Amino acid sequence: MNGALRSGVPPINARVAGLGGSPIRELLRIATAPGMISFAGGSPANELFDVAGVARSYAEVLAQQGPRALQYSSTEGEPELRARIAQFLTAKGVWSTADDIIITSGSQQGLGLIGQVVLDEDAIVLTENPTFVSALQAFALGGARFRAVETDESGMVPEALEEAIIRHSPRAVYTIPTFQNPTGVTTPRERRNEIADVLARHDIWLIEDDPYSEIRFRDEPYSPISSDPRLAGKSLYLGTLSKILAPGLRIGWIRGPQEVLETLTTTKQGISLQTSTIDQLAALHWWENHDLEEKLDPVRAEYMRRRDAMVDGLGHALPEGSTFNRPDGGMFVWASMPEPYDANHALSVAIADGVVYIPGSQFYVSDPVPGTLRLSFVSNSVERIHEGIERLHRVFAEDYRV
Amino acid sequence: MNGALRSGVPPINARVAGLGGSPIRELLRIATAPGMISFAGGSPANELFDVAGVARSYAEVLAQQGPRALQYSSTEGEPELRARIAQFLTAKGVWSTADDIIITSGSQQGLGLIGQVVLDEDAIVLTENPTFVSALQAFALGGARFRAVETDESGMVPEALEEAIIRHSPRAVYTIPTFQNPTGVTTPRERRNEIADVLARHDIWLIEDDPYSEIRFRDEPYSPISSDPRLAGKSLYLGTLSKILAPGLRIGWIRGPQEVLETLTTTKQGISLQTSTIDQLAALHWWENHDLEEKLDPVRAEYMRRRDAMVDGLGHALPEGSTFNRPDGGMFVWASMPEPYDANHALSVAIADGVVYIPGSQFYVSDPVPGTLRLSFVSNSVERIHEGIERLHRVFAEDYRV
Repeated sequence: MNGALRSGVPPINARVAGLGGSPIRELLRIATAPGMISFAGGSPANELFDVAGVARSYAEVLAQQGPRALQYSSTEGEPELRARIAQFLTAKGVWSTADDIIITSGSQQGLGLIGQVVLDEDAIVLTENPTFVSALQAFALGGARFRAVETDESGMVPEALEEAIIRHSPRAVYTIPTFQNPTGVTTPRERRNEIADVLARHDIWLIEDDPYSEIRFRDEPYSPISSDPRLAGKSLYLGTLSKILAPGLRIGWIRGPQEVLETLTTTKQGISLQTSTIDQLAALHWWENHDLEEKLDPVRAEYMRRRDAMVDGLGHALPEGSTFNRPDGGMFVWASMPEPYDANHALSVAIADGVVYIPGSQFYVSDPVPGTLRLSFVSNSVERIHEGIERLHRVFAEDYRV
Repeated sequence: MNGALRSGVPPINARVAGLGGSPIRELLRIATAPGMISFAGGSPANELFDVAGVARSYAEVLAQQGPRALQYSSTEGEPELRARIAQFLTAKGVWSTADDIIITSGSQQGLGLIGQVVLDEDAIVLTENPTFVSALQAFALGGARFRAVETDESGMVPEALEEAIIRHSPRAVYTIPTFQNPTGVTTPRERRNEIADVLARHDIWLIEDDPYSEIRFRDEPYSPISSDPRLAGKSLYLGTLSKILAPGLRIGWIRGPQEVLETLTTTKQGISLQTSTIDQLAALHWWENHDLEEKLDPVRAEYMRRRDAMVDGLGHALPEGSTFNRPDGGMFVWASMPEPYDANHALSVAIADGVVYIPGSQFYVSDPVPGTLRLSFVSNSVERIHEGIERLHRVFAEDYRV
């Protein structure tokens, strides 16, 4: 009976074991080595956090409602924070009330809950290719499988999406239509409407992940796909304060149909109870006492300078024939080197030269392209980006092709 | 293909849907009605939180290491907090280093992770009967099933445990040996050794849940079962700051074999990333700057007064022939009324009379006993307990038997 136990190997749920350790997680460890310049991680810039404002919010919450902040609270989240988020989403075009929102411990928890509740064993999810790997990890825990939808410089191709829906009978479509991770691509308004048409026609769940849209370098945000009223009963729209305020607090949310939120809440209760009460109240206090645009504008301006330093340097750093984009927001630049360059193989040389990125092949659902790489432009100062670009230049100047 | 979608019913993972809504959750909602005296919930007393001390810790953490506190951090938790917990556990007799510990978002998240990682579909878990239902919910999400082990006034009966192991080939044994929820029972030292003997002989996983042991009203704590060195490779020992500091922060931990912690961490990464960085650092700061015993002594003294008020009143409140215990710590008193009294049926009368408890039948894995009820003695002042006892008295004075 207990063979696995007796042999000394702990029994681990086969599905969980199959996920293995994340190579990206290993890379992020290397990225913290002394002297290393990391373009790998997706951490907001430490020096731009509003530490003083956050400190005031914690102090005032504890002074004014300390016992409440330290106590258990409802699994679905603090009502006032849910109302504040509903107001925020409504202003983005996604009409919402507090009852349409649950708070999650970062949007990663939202993805995990959706993986457990909405995605049965062997449910198929259509995704961009490449896409955000941590979403795949979260969904895979529920047993989901993935199929790629063809994309171009405007995101998912509507005709290809429809074809994939017909071919694969998916449970859901997962998309990051604004400043996508890892490619930085944004789907324009017209294309969003076409995607909504396809989704409405086929009655498929939309899982829309929108962590980056407030980090935009132009004035015209597009409404989320979930703003289409035809999708209201079929859309799970995820957001987070990680890139607006700070990721250390773990405050995210899901907006969706109330009957699904009810089941997501029951599941959340089983796997963690409420998101930190004090963090929720402090985040709410900060949000209510600051003008978000005023707080975000200097962050956007600095990130834009960093994007430009990165993009302007890449022509110098990468091999001739490489291509890369200049994203309108978010955190990442995506680059492709011509064959036979391989970003995986070049990585060990890069690490030895004191610079690290994530090979693009890590982000593919299928058919990884060896010459691709993802570079984060937000975590380093312009000076450090220049230095990192020089180091990258040395890597590829050595003509490191394989 | 998408029948469920087209009919307008959202597709919900069958296993999740099977859990249904928790009747206890509904009760806890009722418990917050104005004027209601609630003996239902397990919330620590609001007025005993160290709000001022916690406020100082948040302020100092943000002043001294603000950017770190607001940033992403490692999924397994802040190294200094893990080291502090290891020291705490070693002092309890469970020899540990920081590497033997991962931080979880409350011990509920620990239970959820164990359910996902260690308990395969259809794995059998042996439990006390009655037991902590939220653990069952967490484990059931991974597909586990439950079998009761016979208990007496000292907890699990070792012979019955061994018999159940032989009969059911379980993956694990789940136990709360100190101030058990819901019964308040504590397993004495000798009995712990006998249980460890059985577990070591059969090479079964021990999942030992220990949230309450610091809320003790006598001076002699027993070492956890996990302190037995023979169980080191087979024990997952859960703890929390919820009852030591405050549940609003969601800081718990699992101590276990490092290869299992590695998989628990990978899974945690997929379902939520790190526990709030700022909460971890503030909890650590608080812990390092206070004498825990000095902080807990007044809480223990007040809870003991409340326990006595509750227990001394129950003889008056409950029907003749009822039995109940006087637990040496924790939060709950367990009572049994003679047949034909039914705590489920009496509950609506109780609610109408302004007092609420949880019917004991909610906590059973099998063979629920209708006459049982769980009463929390920590959340109300002695005066409120007296009033609640009077209301309970009126319920049963009406001879409400069915």
